[in-house]
Amino acid sequence: MIDFVFQNPAKIIFGRDALSHLGEEARKYGRRALMVYGGGSVKRIGLFDQVMEILVKNEMKVWELSGIAPNPRLARVREGIDICRREGIGLVLALGGGSAIDTAKGVVNGVPDDGDVWDFYMGKRQPKTTLPLGVILTIPASGSEMSYSSVITNEDGMLKRGFNSVTNVPTFSILNPEWTFSLPPYQTACGCVDIMAHMMERYFTRVTHVELTDRLIAAGMKTILHNAPLVMENPTDYDARAEVMWTGTLAHNTLLHTGRIGDWGSHKVEHELSAEYDIAHGAGIAIVFPAWMKYAVRQYPLKIAQFATEIFDVPTDFGDEAATALEGVRRLETFYRSLSMPVRLSEAGITGADYAMLAARALPTEQSTVGAYIELHRQDIVEIFKLAE
Amino acid sequence: MIDFVFQNPAKIIFGRDALSHLGEEARKYGRRALMVYGGGSVKRIGLFDQVMEILVKNEMKVWELSGIAPNPRLARVREGIDICRREGIGLVLALGGGSAIDTAKGVVNGVPDDGDVWDFYMGKRQPKTTLPLGVILTIPASGSEMSYSSVITNEDGMLKRGFNSVTNVPTFSILNPEWTFSLPPYQTACGCVDIMAHMMERYFTRVTHVELTDRLIAAGMKTILHNAPLVMENPTDYDARAEVMWTGTLAHNTLLHTGRIGDWGSHKVEHELSAEYDIAHGAGIAIVFPAWMKYAVRQYPLKIAQFATEIFDVPTDFGDEAATALEGVRRLETFYRSLSMPVRLSEAGITGADYAMLAARALPTEQSTVGAYIELHRQDIVEIFKLAE
Repeated sequence: MIDFVFQNPAKIIFGRDALSHLGEEARKYGRRALMVYGGGSVKRIGLFDQVMEILVKNEMKVWELSGIAPNPRLARVREGIDICRREGIGLVLALGGGSAIDTAKGVVNGVPDDGDVWDFYMGKRQPKTTLPLGVILTIPASGSEMSYSSVITNEDGMLKRGFNSVTNVPTFSILNPEWTFSLPPYQTACGCVDIMAHMMERYFTRVTHVELTDRLIAAGMKTILHNAPLVMENPTDYDARAEVMWTGTLAHNTLLHTGRIGDWGSHKVEHELSAEYDIAHGAGIAIVFPAWMKYAVRQYPLKIAQFATEIFDVPTDFGDEAATALEGVRRLETFYRSLSMPVRLSEAGITGADYAMLAARALPTEQSTVGAYIELHRQDIVEIFKLAE
Repeated sequence: MIDFVFQNPAKIIFGRDALSHLGEEARKYGRRALMVYGGGSVKRIGLFDQVMEILVKNEMKVWELSGIAPNPRLARVREGIDICRREGIGLVLALGGGSAIDTAKGVVNGVPDDGDVWDFYMGKRQPKTTLPLGVILTIPASGSEMSYSSVITNEDGMLKRGFNSVTNVPTFSILNPEWTFSLPPYQTACGCVDIMAHMMERYFTRVTHVELTDRLIAAGMKTILHNAPLVMENPTDYDARAEVMWTGTLAHNTLLHTGRIGDWGSHKVEHELSAEYDIAHGAGIAIVFPAWMKYAVRQYPLKIAQFATEIFDVPTDFGDEAATALEGVRRLETFYRSLSMPVRLSEAGITGADYAMLAARALPTEQSTVGAYIELHRQDIVEIFKLAE
């Protein structure tokens, strides 16, 4: 276990009655709110109207930044910053999933800042302060409702970049598993894959003596493995939806990496894929992560073998550690397939991609690397893409 | 899973180098600190001097409330409140374990309050605000370094009472497993029992569909079962000490009871025992909890049977659920004994106790109850004491 600092002050309000807390929480931050959301689904399930009614009843004036799409764009962040400054907004409310939340995070960081908000995503500067951010979560996947991170795509060059900061932690997040009942199966599956991936990125570490966090991560992964099929089969299973939703939040709130160094190479590689092809992040992860694992086994099979035995009950007497590890990867792919996820580039309709170009976007120079479990240079990323064909 | 609100803003600074953060954290809260501590051990290991040196280097003036003993007393809380008011203290620093921390919590709640601080412990009022509280933890056991609770004994009637409040959550807590190297084996064992008990109180619930939190609690309990013998055998095993210390914090920071209703009957019963006989809380728990479990099995064996199979690998084909559960209790007692803990009243030198008097102290009237997994009236507490003989 390595030294760490852990703090996550986000207030989580969870359950069937969670929305009843919105008025009380929101009006702590003045009378002017900007609501950031996508569009269709939150209106279809009636949640948008419910939220508006509560805000109006609490005498709040609401501005809207709507139509936020997956792989959310920088231009919308800038638009939100302008509205907040112009209207003297005191609270930004994200309604939806990771795209709405990450856009809102860009906004709350940008408003009090003098420079260009994209600097934060390029790692040039860190935000010093922020507007209060409330979340009303309808898609369990990104973990953004309690995370330190925000991921935005800059249209100029299609650069998808994320950054971590305490200013990205929402002030409060309201979660009701019922809001996920009407999620399409594809989106439900993508979410489960993403949640698993946030835990896998942290599980695969070279730091030794991390027993408690290993066990906590395993607890989360097993919960997803058990409940993902349940929600696919019965979308209105409250209990299973609740397990997925709460696991999704805890998967990414930094508790599970206390004392460890995670990898995050797969996320970096996937970000280039979804930025270029605009596929869902979860689907991209289902393609990239198994390929990354196969590549990583060649260098350092240990933790992937542990994953295979602990999470997928692969016997350890397979003959060698690498074989045990690879059987774990095979079972993970089987799990992804059971959710109708693509596990090869071709299954997502991606053929003839320019791997070298994608690798060059991921890493600024030939000498640059990403990942801690294994270090990836550009050439390694190309090899991982080949393994994903 | 039931609806819940979860928030824990405490900043945890953990590891070999943790104390290097003290100056920066402390000086956020002015130049005047009250240090609350026991005495012997923190001076013997040199930590007291290190802390003082850092505070002086940061130009802080330090007052002392020392000699805090186990089962800490209300009079010392009042004394601390007086010092803070008189000297305009901006930060209270607890140095030690649960007794120092819980005393400090009483102080920080009491200072800005107009009424009697004991009201909070009697459940008459809740604190509205608090002084900042820093913790430097040397004993993993109480979880008070990140918990909502404080437990104090009123000398007038030997009433040991606890209360939960967000104002009890420390502002920051500094944890270095090295500081636990010199803990005597008895205290190490008591700590492990206490940590396990905080998880057991939450594990034993009648709330169904709590898979994630069941698994998280199991992760913590298994970590203690594995590492407690390691620290008993080799007190300077950093890795094992670190596992115990971090598990001790997470066991009680309220994450593990999200969506559940814990029991807490055993803690209530034990508090009367340790208030009357001044035994260590962990030792009292090792006596009371197995007795409580045996009593609870008669009414509702389900979760105790699950505990037996999940945590102690008891086969489920024992013939009946109660038998499975009781075998789990037997194995828990074996674990306690392996740590040289008493598991019967007589083993702690307690004979001829007035059970009815203790039960009457625990519950104000014949109609009063405590516990959610099973409801205890006074007579039930008497029966539990008999089972602990």
